Amino acid sequence: MNNKFYGIGVGVGDPEEITMKAVNVLKKLDVVILPEAKKDEGSVAYEIAKQYMKKDVEKVFVEFPMLKSLEDRINARKANAKIVEEYLEKGLNVGFLTIGDSMTYSTYVYLLEHLPEKYLVETVPGISSFVDMASRFNFPLMIGEESLKVVSLNSHTEIEKEIASSDNIVFMKVSRSFERLKQAIIATGNQENIIMVSNCGKENQVVTYDIEELEEEDIPYFTTLILKKGGMKAWKKFIS
Amino acid sequence: MNNKFYGIGVGVGDPEEITMKAVNVLKKLDVVILPEAKKDEGSVAYEIAKQYMKKDVEKVFVEFPMLKSLEDRINARKANAKIVEEYLEKGLNVGFLTIGDSMTYSTYVYLLEHLPEKYLVETVPGISSFVDMASRFNFPLMIGEESLKVVSLNSHTEIEKEIASSDNIVFMKVSRSFERLKQAIIATGNQENIIMVSNCGKENQVVTYDIEELEEEDIPYFTTLILKKGGMKAWKKFIS
Repeated sequence: MNNKFYGIGVGVGDPEEITMKAVNVLKKLDVVILPEAKKDEGSVAYEIAKQYMKKDVEKVFVEFPMLKSLEDRINARKANAKIVEEYLEKGLNVGFLTIGDSMTYSTYVYLLEHLPEKYLVETVPGISSFVDMASRFNFPLMIGEESLKVVSLNSHTEIEKEIASSDNIVFMKVSRSFERLKQAIIATGNQENIIMVSNCGKENQVVTYDIEELEEEDIPYFTTLILKKGGMKAWKKFIS
Repeated sequence: MNNKFYGIGVGVGDPEEITMKAVNVLKKLDVVILPEAKKDEGSVAYEIAKQYMKKDVEKVFVEFPMLKSLEDRINARKANAKIVEEYLEKGLNVGFLTIGDSMTYSTYVYLLEHLPEKYLVETVPGISSFVDMASRFNFPLMIGEESLKVVSLNSHTEIEKEIASSDNIVFMKVSRSFERLKQAIIATGNQENIIMVSNCGKENQVVTYDIEELEEEDIPYFTTLILKKGGMKAWKKFIS
């Protein structure tokens, strides 16, 4: 059998910001696996991708519940990989959609982890939120010999240490610990070196360069902040 | 005038691994700026993009010489931005191609830096080498709460400190200090946690998981190494 399990990165929202490879793979899918735990994410990815898929593509909703015990989470992942396996055994092309890039914080890898190696797998990359942000607002992620660090912000993140560790720092999931992040940015004197974007590329997109007046409850779930120690000022001239 | 200066990320080599947005922008270009200093890179980007461009697109070669003095480099960049400006003044659509992503270590930003703000600018992102690598070889760049660091390796890089600083570390331009990198990987016990790819996606692509026998002179210019502290072993099963 030549059918495959495909992981497809669909970008952050603009239906043109998807690779031609992703479009060609989407056309082949018989079944699309949609994660239910992150209900919003699942539907956003599907909304971007659906125009490229067959009209009769079978939608299969699977749950990745946020269970406290790792063992329970692993069992849920195994059960989901089993579902993928059943469709692959029927000779069907099965796809899993990810917002942004397939290999950047995606549930897709938990299916790969538990899928037997006899199946064919193909992963198609996509444009992540932070990569999209840099192009959308015309600033470099890194130039010359600069480094870049990507951090999934949470209540344990040692924020000042992260700021010290790199020339450019991307904080994802900012809403989870915004107050601490704001204080660390002020404490390290980086107030003018940041750009923060919520709902990047969507209708309700919000861009801000000044976070001092903002509070944690103002921050939407899909918010990314990039701190550029080299400064943001020079990079505002082409933002319209 | 509604003409623009476009920065376009064209991916690492697979002509399908380019976004639809990039393809649509390439079709509009009247002029394409090609950097001459990195002769190989310039032509690779052009080879990927040319099938999508008008047959009579004007090719303009500009030099970004590797001059020792920063002042001289800045003057060269200003002169190049002036060339872009002249074409924009004629009402033409001007494009600058970058291998991988437009905002990841691209010369493009040196043109943006010196271009007056009255012009319209649009940047189209692309798939970087390390993003491509993860999908091509079916392993996650980061999962769960993991962090990622991207480093442009050179003779000054404090490699063990970089390894300590993140869960996943991408070393770009590995050939510039391979021997030191190899020793640091061995010293920190990470020999089994790496994947190294040279000429990713091209005919002469080489993948290796074991660098202990390799010497600095064996390493091609386009080589990226990813160190995953969580291990690479689990992620080899879908590599064909």
